[in-house]
Amino acid sequence: MSARRALYGSVESGGTKVVCLVGTSPSALVAQARFPTGAPGETLARVVDFFGRATQRHGPLAAVGVASFGPLELRPNLPTYGFTTDTPKPGWVDVDVLGSLARELKVPIGIDTDVNGAALGEGRWGAARGLDTYVYLTVGTGIGGGAIVGGRPVRGLVHTEMGHVAVSRRPGDDFPGNCPFHGDCLEGMAGGTAVADRWGRPAEQLTGDELHRAVELEAGYLAEGLRSIVYCTAPERIVIGGGMSVLPGLLPAVRAELLKQLGGYPGLPEQAADDFVVPAELGAMAGPAGGLVLAFRAEAQHGTR
Amino acid sequence: MSARRALYGSVESGGTKVVCLVGTSPSALVAQARFPTGAPGETLARVVDFFGRATQRHGPLAAVGVASFGPLELRPNLPTYGFTTDTPKPGWVDVDVLGSLARELKVPIGIDTDVNGAALGEGRWGAARGLDTYVYLTVGTGIGGGAIVGGRPVRGLVHTEMGHVAVSRRPGDDFPGNCPFHGDCLEGMAGGTAVADRWGRPAEQLTGDELHRAVELEAGYLAEGLRSIVYCTAPERIVIGGGMSVLPGLLPAVRAELLKQLGGYPGLPEQAADDFVVPAELGAMAGPAGGLVLAFRAEAQHGTR
Repeated sequence: MSARRALYGSVESGGTKVVCLVGTSPSALVAQARFPTGAPGETLARVVDFFGRATQRHGPLAAVGVASFGPLELRPNLPTYGFTTDTPKPGWVDVDVLGSLARELKVPIGIDTDVNGAALGEGRWGAARGLDTYVYLTVGTGIGGGAIVGGRPVRGLVHTEMGHVAVSRRPGDDFPGNCPFHGDCLEGMAGGTAVADRWGRPAEQLTGDELHRAVELEAGYLAEGLRSIVYCTAPERIVIGGGMSVLPGLLPAVRAELLKQLGGYPGLPEQAADDFVVPAELGAMAGPAGGLVLAFRAEAQHGTR
Repeated sequence: MSARRALYGSVESGGTKVVCLVGTSPSALVAQARFPTGAPGETLARVVDFFGRATQRHGPLAAVGVASFGPLELRPNLPTYGFTTDTPKPGWVDVDVLGSLARELKVPIGIDTDVNGAALGEGRWGAARGLDTYVYLTVGTGIGGGAIVGGRPVRGLVHTEMGHVAVSRRPGDDFPGNCPFHGDCLEGMAGGTAVADRWGRPAEQLTGDELHRAVELEAGYLAEGLRSIVYCTAPERIVIGGGMSVLPGLLPAVRAELLKQLGGYPGLPEQAADDFVVPAELGAMAGPAGGLVLAFRAEAQHGTR
């Protein structure tokens, strides 16, 4: 009889869908489910139900990790720790995600933003394996970034919001920007909805000169945002995921443009290497994988109390 | 007979002068010296000589901390750990600051950038006391920022360079920027030499409408840079020091402009409070105080090996 290995649960709670996993790594899963993100009560009940059935079948979970859309309250000393805060998602303002799950599941639970979760997943099993300090940037309909510094997601007041860094307008671009808060921040100029607004249709429908120009603009804005991110967080690598990241030729153009924008300062050869800006490796599995990492950490932290 | 309390050494190695201290806090010093930063050999010999004499008089040091101008190599696994790298300061490229001192002083030595040192000093004894995650920004002839995250300075590849984040040109400002690497980055638009270049004389000689306009521009650029810094590092507080920070009315203008630029996102009331952006408290003592913190940490790290 062999010793039974502990199992962990993961929840990626996204704006449109929820992914739940049970296992020990993305390649060692015993159960998984995905369903649309509905109203909070119903959605969290489905998560609890999934883990209840997985536990009956596979045995108890050591811990659960939650990678959730935000903004979230992540200061552990506050009574609203693990709540959503001012999210634009209808019905989801001030929802006690952590508490709702903790009361039902009765195991240690870790929580962080979806993008910090994806960053942890890429660090454990993906494109940032072995690195201590790196950035994960997701470029989809919106833009979000997670910085891992010294192995831990950056948290303070409260979590990063890298999609909203300032960028300068690229020559010849008269699109005003569509961020409801800042207009022409990085997300407002280069998120998927910004590209669709600029061209009158989504990026994946662009061809020829328009596609060429769209990729050139996208690379310029991303590189300028990344310059600020690099100067603020000193990453060893930048991992780029999200639907927009697969635009043809985008990543090489971002690499070239970022190098230009760094202007030789501080002149680190690592920043000129091909593995400084790399594509994500885990795709849609990055966030759920990160949930497993959050579960490992929740268990470890619980054990040291 | 009372137990003798351990003493610590600190070196702040700046572009123009060196400050050396021996003691346990900025208010409990037994020796100090300051002298101009000359050629590396001579300068480091004066540091060694100072600590040698202090040791003869007051007893051995438990550890020494060095807060140095940069760029520096700060990856401990590299043979050039603790060297200056591509600094524009003549004669100081690739100088083994850490090794030169360690060979002579024979105590544990910690090293970090001058701005990270100042950040640590303000965190221990100054305007960021009790905080875990904050930013120290020095606005002098140049602009530099140190981010403390989870109590530790951000380090990766290699250290932050927050003075070089992107900013948008303020309406009506046609100064091209004077950063040799980026032109119109934050430092290139708002450092002390940029202000002097824009107006034809240093900020402290401006009066009336020119001073008013200079403060307005300065607040605008600093706020825009800080917006990116806030979104990248989630600080609980921003401490601003350096000669330019005392321009009349600057800090209240930065507070108001930053709030405007955050655009209500993510809408944290703490970011609207008067103690979110505060003046440094330690003045010129911030860096040397930070050297003491680096010494404490070097001793603790040495003890756990």
